[in-house]
Amino acid sequence: MRYSLVAIVFAYSALTCSLPKVSGDEGMYLFNDLPLELLKERHEFEPSEKWADDLRLSSVRFNSGGSGSFISSDGLVLTNHHVASDTLQKLSSPERNLIEAGYLAKTLDQEIKAPDLELNQLVAIEDVTARVNAAVADSTNPEEAAKQRRAVISTIEQESLEKTGLRSDVVTLFGGALYHLYRYKKYTDVRLVWAPETAAAFFGGDADNFEYPRYNLDATIMRVYEDGKPAELEHFLRWNRDPLTEGELVFVSGNPGRTQRIFTVDALKYLRDDRLPYLLDYLRRKEVLMQQYSLNGKEATRRARDELFGIQNARKAYTGMLAGLQNPQTFVDKQAAETALLEQVKADPKLRDLATAWDEIATIQSENRDRLGKSVSFRSSLFDLALQIVLLTAEDQKPNEQRLRGYTDSSRESLLQELLSPAPIYQDLEQVKLADEIARLIEHRGAEDPLVEKVLNGKSPRDQAAELVLNSKLIDVDERQKLIDGGLEAVEQSSDPMIQLARTVEAEYRQIRAESEQLQERERQAYAKIAQAVTAIQGTGGYPDATFTLRLAFGTVKGYTEDGKQIPPTTNIGGAYQHAEEHKGQQDFDLPTSWMDGKNRVDLDTQLNFVCTADIIGGNSGSPVVNRDGELVGLIFDGNIQSLTADYLYSEQQSRAVSVSGVGILETLKSIYGARDLARQIGR
Amino acid sequence: MRYSLVAIVFAYSALTCSLPKVSGDEGMYLFNDLPLELLKERHEFEPSEKWADDLRLSSVRFNSGGSGSFISSDGLVLTNHHVASDTLQKLSSPERNLIEAGYLAKTLDQEIKAPDLELNQLVAIEDVTARVNAAVADSTNPEEAAKQRRAVISTIEQESLEKTGLRSDVVTLFGGALYHLYRYKKYTDVRLVWAPETAAAFFGGDADNFEYPRYNLDATIMRVYEDGKPAELEHFLRWNRDPLTEGELVFVSGNPGRTQRIFTVDALKYLRDDRLPYLLDYLRRKEVLMQQYSLNGKEATRRARDELFGIQNARKAYTGMLAGLQNPQTFVDKQAAETALLEQVKADPKLRDLATAWDEIATIQSENRDRLGKSVSFRSSLFDLALQIVLLTAEDQKPNEQRLRGYTDSSRESLLQELLSPAPIYQDLEQVKLADEIARLIEHRGAEDPLVEKVLNGKSPRDQAAELVLNSKLIDVDERQKLIDGGLEAVEQSSDPMIQLARTVEAEYRQIRAESEQLQERERQAYAKIAQAVTAIQGTGGYPDATFTLRLAFGTVKGYTEDGKQIPPTTNIGGAYQHAEEHKGQQDFDLPTSWMDGKNRVDLDTQLNFVCTADIIGGNSGSPVVNRDGELVGLIFDGNIQSLTADYLYSEQQSRAVSVSGVGILETLKSIYGARDLARQIGR
Repeated sequence: MRYSLVAIVFAYSALTCSLPKVSGDEGMYLFNDLPLELLKERHEFEPSEKWADDLRLSSVRFNSGGSGSFISSDGLVLTNHHVASDTLQKLSSPERNLIEAGYLAKTLDQEIKAPDLELNQLVAIEDVTARVNAAVADSTNPEEAAKQRRAVISTIEQESLEKTGLRSDVVTLFGGALYHLYRYKKYTDVRLVWAPETAAAFFGGDADNFEYPRYNLDATIMRVYEDGKPAELEHFLRWNRDPLTEGELVFVSGNPGRTQRIFTVDALKYLRDDRLPYLLDYLRRKEVLMQQYSLNGKEATRRARDELFGIQNARKAYTGMLAGLQNPQTFVDKQAAETALLEQVKADPKLRDLATAWDEIATIQSENRDRLGKSVSFRSSLFDLALQIVLLTAEDQKPNEQRLRGYTDSSRESLLQELLSPAPIYQDLEQVKLADEIARLIEHRGAEDPLVEKVLNGKSPRDQAAELVLNSKLIDVDERQKLIDGGLEAVEQSSDPMIQLARTVEAEYRQIRAESEQLQERERQAYAKIAQAVTAIQGTGGYPDATFTLRLAFGTVKGYTEDGKQIPPTTNIGGAYQHAEEHKGQQDFDLPTSWMDGKNRVDLDTQLNFVCTADIIGGNSGSPVVNRDGELVGLIFDGNIQSLTADYLYSEQQSRAVSVSGVGILETLKSIYGARDLARQIGR
Repeated sequence: MRYSLVAIVFAYSALTCSLPKVSGDEGMYLFNDLPLELLKERHEFEPSEKWADDLRLSSVRFNSGGSGSFISSDGLVLTNHHVASDTLQKLSSPERNLIEAGYLAKTLDQEIKAPDLELNQLVAIEDVTARVNAAVADSTNPEEAAKQRRAVISTIEQESLEKTGLRSDVVTLFGGALYHLYRYKKYTDVRLVWAPETAAAFFGGDADNFEYPRYNLDATIMRVYEDGKPAELEHFLRWNRDPLTEGELVFVSGNPGRTQRIFTVDALKYLRDDRLPYLLDYLRRKEVLMQQYSLNGKEATRRARDELFGIQNARKAYTGMLAGLQNPQTFVDKQAAETALLEQVKADPKLRDLATAWDEIATIQSENRDRLGKSVSFRSSLFDLALQIVLLTAEDQKPNEQRLRGYTDSSRESLLQELLSPAPIYQDLEQVKLADEIARLIEHRGAEDPLVEKVLNGKSPRDQAAELVLNSKLIDVDERQKLIDGGLEAVEQSSDPMIQLARTVEAEYRQIRAESEQLQERERQAYAKIAQAVTAIQGTGGYPDATFTLRLAFGTVKGYTEDGKQIPPTTNIGGAYQHAEEHKGQQDFDLPTSWMDGKNRVDLDTQLNFVCTADIIGGNSGSPVVNRDGELVGLIFDGNIQSLTADYLYSEQQSRAVSVSGVGILETLKSIYGARDLARQIGR
């Protein structure tokens, strides 16, 4: 899936619940609630506390939407090329195309600082459920309850930040049955050490994406710095030097984005009949738009590349997800399970009242349906900056605990890093994107809508977008800094047309956001009831739906059968050359020059990719795969096409996580990229 | 626009009315009602009857959706490469890729027969308005009126066919103010003589499509045969051997598809806010689908090519059309004109009653809106064949005048040619397309819709599509012939799954079609009233909205100003080489080998493309451009981006028709394609 959050930035709102029944190697477990019994029973494995702590503290989350791991005592970080590609794109220029050409820093001096990366290391987890629940006086009024909950959460986060200096996020689990405070050590000085060419990292392109067997070197190495020097790390992963064998037990430590496994039948039907078709229309629109823009030439192609690939990746992922939902068999099974569960709930006097939760979910879906396309935000970097500055300066007028999520004191630093990023913004691309977003607003609201008329100001979307983009000074980081420093007054007096556009839509944006949050609160309450019913009937021991926070998954290295054919679990470097040969002349099937030149040096038998049964999802991209000894053996980068239903359904039969083998990374570093020094540093 | 009907096969239903006010060189005139006064006044030109007859009889219509002309006494026909590409695609195989490589028949033996082309030469026009109107007893009941009108039209067509042996179509003009009987001589043995490579014909690809200046050799030459020999033609165009100069008066004789210039403000708003966004979602979906399929390799790319390009072309055309409508200024002007007109109508006691027509149009738009996505047809060749066979055998049970349009005796021959075409059908492509169409049906109707459940039969769209396509025998022409010969009984007893699918949807298809036709009838009546009001106030002398029938447009060769830059009216062959150089490395900007090899032989100063102010639209592709003397000087192939609003608005300021120069075709034939013999034959 190129399993980064790219696939899910467009995704469903944050619901975080538990799944009725765990099957096979299913599960994305909390590090403070590992499935010890299950692991012992299924795999005769009993992880020690140190094993788990080491793994947790060697794992990092990327704010660009993926996972990674520390792989040396002096700050080296391993992640996917496609997780790093946002940074590679931002560091590239017409003269230095890192996306295409790759990069290798031969010395520390040559390591290039990412403009706006933030890496989070989860250092502590604290259960704050009791305090959150105590603060919500009246849960029968969703609006009031949401406000009280947000307030107490902001306060907890703020207190924690002040006390520890650590990034502090309260995470809602099991639909609100649990609230955990996560404390992260942040790394914001992250530098690029090595990246292969996209031709090697994304070998086979969109055609091979989500397919298997694969031959991709979807890996990049960065380094975290502290005080201008490579960070000294206590926890990092040792690197195993042996290839994996079928049946081997492995673990994935990463940050799965969002799953929806608790979803009721009605919620899945809404996904199937409304939400996903709507999202796919949007993604295809953006895909065609970015392709059209790319036709302007080589430089345009370079500018659009990372975003276009992200869109294509998401489109392919959602298409697979929708296809699974459109299979009537999916619903036969889901419906049977739900009917049985509901019968038990209704038959139990202690649980009976909870049954209304399913009806409430149905009602919410129909409200969601009516709200599709109601958004007034525009996907454009300059507009995003403008809106965030407008919101920031306005929210600053309120007490911390009453602010919008993302604008509290505890998230300030991360927000400023984004707003003041020196990453390039391309005016021509911005114009194309904003014009299309304005056109889409017209389509959704009609040209006579008062807000549309204000946005257009009598001009065509294209002319108005040109005027807004070309006359805005937000492209300049100093201008943003000035507005932020100047606060509300500066924003209100600003003649910047993009700031003015953001102010034009602000009221409606806030209203729609408030309504959404209210709906989410009702949904959360309903799913909390469902989780309660499930727990009462089936017992605990499960895992909460994914929340883009650190989880542990496990599974075995295992092939599968597809269309009657046996797919082996591993591939090797020689297979890449063969695959290139078989697809000669096809787009994205040319191996880069470095690989062609290195063919005689590299050991063709070295393992390159493998699949395992671990339960992963978008956000897991870049997750380390470790063995029983906690040593790095692989790097998650994709799921096969059969795994695309994982949002709402895990199946061990064909669904597989796809990884780059640790040994494959090592061998290519040494024999293809001439990076023997780097290869020596990693794992120690 | 690659101005073939490809762009409008998805287009709006057949409305055929007149435009309020003619401006500049606007107009697509009937050959039996030429704007003699206007031509005299504006251009001091008085065409003789012979001039007009010769031009009309030298013009042909392609059933694949474009125009063409006879260019020699022995049957040569000139059209666009992109009009011929449907045939080139059908004649191609993995071993013989005519689309990519082009073709030149050195002898008559080498001319290749198109599998299902039909060319129509308009030999006579007869006004049958009185007879049609007399047959409609009660126009207050739209359903009944439509039935009576259809009946009398079928009878007129059938009588004409029996009497003359000619294809006979009654055409509705000015929203039903006029009905004309068109008689066509049909040519069904059409063979390929010469086609350039797509790299020359579609030089610049999607990027240059609808742009200007251009350097495209979008031309192909075919030959019509009768009784196995080249047809002897009395009427054909002489070929002018001089380049065009700015200001020269030219004429375009071709078959514009559909315009909507009479549309009321409400109708345009429906287009803007509902219909076009809906169509664009559909086109983008198909574009991405076909691109994904093409990723399967070179052969898949070849199979999908023509359809993909048609889709991209339509997407670009509709995007431009929508952009024009989303410009508030468009509506300011339209609204002002409509308000003024309505005031005059309401002020005139004789016209006052007609004012309700505008309200009726508004009502119809809101009904149209509710019907979007209600269709149950699937875009797949095998399904189309199945549905048509099912309809044909069922309609055959009815008297001729009660049958559905397209299934009457007079259209039998053309229908059979389509149904029995040996053009290749690719099962893998069919599966992909049908699976997506079934998925789309689920999205539009919900998975619980009874018809959807029947179509799916418990399987996923992909599995069900595979089953339908792989088990259908309709891929075999003989099987189709058998079913047609066996009639209703054979169809009812057929176990062919595609026939069964067509029978499953037949009832609903018929109902939806009937409802649509009823709506169209109401719309036609309303626009007839509006046309009546316009004529009463502004007088006659206009032209009816386009109906994919032969029209004459006129204009002058003329550059224009764009973004402050003067765009010259003509380009030359040397410019093509320069354009290729400037876009080196970009997709679709490599000239073919023949051009690179011929660079030293060809006269670089020869005119290649030119623009003129003539009023054209999709369907005009392949139209001959002639001078005052009726000699061929060019070949329409596109409109510039500013002309994309032509569906509803003509403007002389920037809107231009784009043509290949006659001299450019001649020079490349001789100096690049080594086709001196052919060059000698044309025009004589």
